[in-house]
Amino acid sequence: MEKHLKNAIVGQSGGPTAAINATLAGVIRGALDAKGEGKLGTLYGMRYGIEGALSDNLIDLCCRFADPRELDALENTPAAALGSCRRKLKSHTDDPDTYDRLFALFAKYNIGYFFYIGGNDSMDTVHKLSVCAEERGYDLRVIGVPKTIDNDLAATDHTPGFGSAAKYVATTVKEILRDVSVYTVKAVTIVEIMGRDAGWLTASAALPYLSGGMGPDLIYLPEVPFDTDAFIASVRAAMERHPAVLVCVSEGIRFADGEYVGAGTQSGAVDVFGHKYLAGAARVLESVVKERLGCKVRSIELSLPQRCGAHLCSLTDIRESVAVGRAAVASALSGLTGVMMTYRRTSDTPYEIEIVPMPIGGIANAVRAVPREYINETGDGITEAGLRYLAPLILGETSPIYENGLPYHIVL
Amino acid sequence: MEKHLKNAIVGQSGGPTAAINATLAGVIRGALDAKGEGKLGTLYGMRYGIEGALSDNLIDLCCRFADPRELDALENTPAAALGSCRRKLKSHTDDPDTYDRLFALFAKYNIGYFFYIGGNDSMDTVHKLSVCAEERGYDLRVIGVPKTIDNDLAATDHTPGFGSAAKYVATTVKEILRDVSVYTVKAVTIVEIMGRDAGWLTASAALPYLSGGMGPDLIYLPEVPFDTDAFIASVRAAMERHPAVLVCVSEGIRFADGEYVGAGTQSGAVDVFGHKYLAGAARVLESVVKERLGCKVRSIELSLPQRCGAHLCSLTDIRESVAVGRAAVASALSGLTGVMMTYRRTSDTPYEIEIVPMPIGGIANAVRAVPREYINETGDGITEAGLRYLAPLILGETSPIYENGLPYHIVL
Repeated sequence: MEKHLKNAIVGQSGGPTAAINATLAGVIRGALDAKGEGKLGTLYGMRYGIEGALSDNLIDLCCRFADPRELDALENTPAAALGSCRRKLKSHTDDPDTYDRLFALFAKYNIGYFFYIGGNDSMDTVHKLSVCAEERGYDLRVIGVPKTIDNDLAATDHTPGFGSAAKYVATTVKEILRDVSVYTVKAVTIVEIMGRDAGWLTASAALPYLSGGMGPDLIYLPEVPFDTDAFIASVRAAMERHPAVLVCVSEGIRFADGEYVGAGTQSGAVDVFGHKYLAGAARVLESVVKERLGCKVRSIELSLPQRCGAHLCSLTDIRESVAVGRAAVASALSGLTGVMMTYRRTSDTPYEIEIVPMPIGGIANAVRAVPREYINETGDGITEAGLRYLAPLILGETSPIYENGLPYHIVL
Repeated sequence: MEKHLKNAIVGQSGGPTAAINATLAGVIRGALDAKGEGKLGTLYGMRYGIEGALSDNLIDLCCRFADPRELDALENTPAAALGSCRRKLKSHTDDPDTYDRLFALFAKYNIGYFFYIGGNDSMDTVHKLSVCAEERGYDLRVIGVPKTIDNDLAATDHTPGFGSAAKYVATTVKEILRDVSVYTVKAVTIVEIMGRDAGWLTASAALPYLSGGMGPDLIYLPEVPFDTDAFIASVRAAMERHPAVLVCVSEGIRFADGEYVGAGTQSGAVDVFGHKYLAGAARVLESVVKERLGCKVRSIELSLPQRCGAHLCSLTDIRESVAVGRAAVASALSGLTGVMMTYRRTSDTPYEIEIVPMPIGGIANAVRAVPREYINETGDGITEAGLRYLAPLILGETSPIYENGLPYHIVL
């Protein structure tokens, strides 16, 4: 590390995805190149997100990943290898102490570049930090790199990590469809998919229609109010067509009055961001079907595996996730700050995107819902326009390294 | 089809696995070869197990799979492509009508060979049918080909389908371990794995220890009585070592008095075989941990995906599953009847097996539990001997065909 060169720091925050380490690998690759070109000292990793910067818990990533094969493996390792946190920073006017500690660390390690890979809440941190740096006159380039399986960040065509989760969900739903179709007994299977406010991931359950022509009978997203009578009528109608009825629902589906369908089974607990903690929409609907239709019914929560199933990633997603990490380094070195890296889709066929840095002010905290034209009129299926949007994001398969029959993971 | 040649019939029964179609493909490959050699007319498939034979719902599989590429795809399609059933035949003395209908169909289609791919209950059907054929003096060679993710059939080293489910479980547990390890907050995650009477599949959750040295903190099988106080003490001790504690439990874990841990959440419903319908051990333990330790806790049921996740199969399992299907045809043509095809392990290193037909009389209805020496002394982990047994069964990866980003499945 040359003394006069600025160093960079990177952190991961929020819930895990199968691609968040691919973006980290992209940032490391970008940093290694910049270091080689004499433009950067080194790249530090914060352990456990911003907590690592507050407690001086760092790791020199240029040293750790001197062997590029380790970066290949990192790209196929799920969840945040650096560790994560759910801490949301207050503004620097409300909590100056925290910012004092952060900038003391930046000064100590000669940090000139700050990369934060995360979701909505993390982009809020990026925004606050860039504003604070400017007000303090500290020369820090702050870049947000999005990741979320929810695909609900504004200003980007899609988010890194979404394509892999969508591929996992669509594959698993397709396999469940094979499983439940083996019997002639009338039965309803209800699959609950992650998505508190936006139904993007649940919408991807419709993708099997593009590969074999079959898919779930009914798909419900949070974007359309859920009506129990209409649901039961639709299940009944589907059962006329075939005995095994498959329903996919977002965890966040709500009734017209805004109440979560899953709320009945909840304790009303909220996470540290005040989000309602949900798990139960499918289980509630299981009871409803049992009571109203009296047939065999089973609910399945895809749960954590849908966000950490790195053995089944979208090659498109992983390649883009690496590229966006690299692009973040390039943007920072070119002098940008207070931006989030976004994808802009320039063509559907062939599918093409550009990576574009966007000012983060208007992006943080905005939630992007599934547009109404991607959902069918009756609110229980996905349109062709929706499938056209989703289809390219799950294309291609990665080649994870297997060791003794199991995927090899990088553990820091 | 030559008139003078006997035909064969094959059916699939019981719960789906990711490998049951590989065995079907093996039977078809064997039949196509025998047909080519002038030893067999054709091979019919029964739709929905024995129901298809009772209702004359058959498909000519030699015609359907004239293109061998379709057989490659069938080997990577999960669940029973022919359909399945859960019908358990009564004995021919108790229910002669059913057997009259079966033998009328056999006569109509000139059936000389009967293959049934299934679990414990299906092997019981094979046994009854072979006894009845002999008593009736009908020349029928009846061969059982095992399949079950539960690995609980007697007389075989392991069952076709188990290795793939074990690989899926071990991979998913390894990925969940990455996911839950990202935070510094104390949290317990409880993963529920299939296995009503035998803990083989849950035991495979220990396999990550052979690939990276990390794995679940605690593993509980039905073979050892579950003690809630010991469980809580063990979770507490694990939490001293690291904040994220990972526990894996069989759905069928029981207290010392024989009551299922999950029974408290059940309606007491039983399936058509009189098995108690279980789903809930992890959820019960989630409540216990919340109450006794007060920390964050989450339960995850791996549910159906663990038995139909054909995108992540053990190559060893799939190859063996095809081979055992072929061997069944060879055994039938050589004149055997009333046998189940079994695996005999002849060597651990290198791993080698032989396929051996065994008289089915003593096998049907016997359940093979995990031996005590595979479980550690405290009953909450797997020994090296257990890992040595399990390790070779998950080796190798298959190459499913992908179409538009999703696995291609054969639908009959």
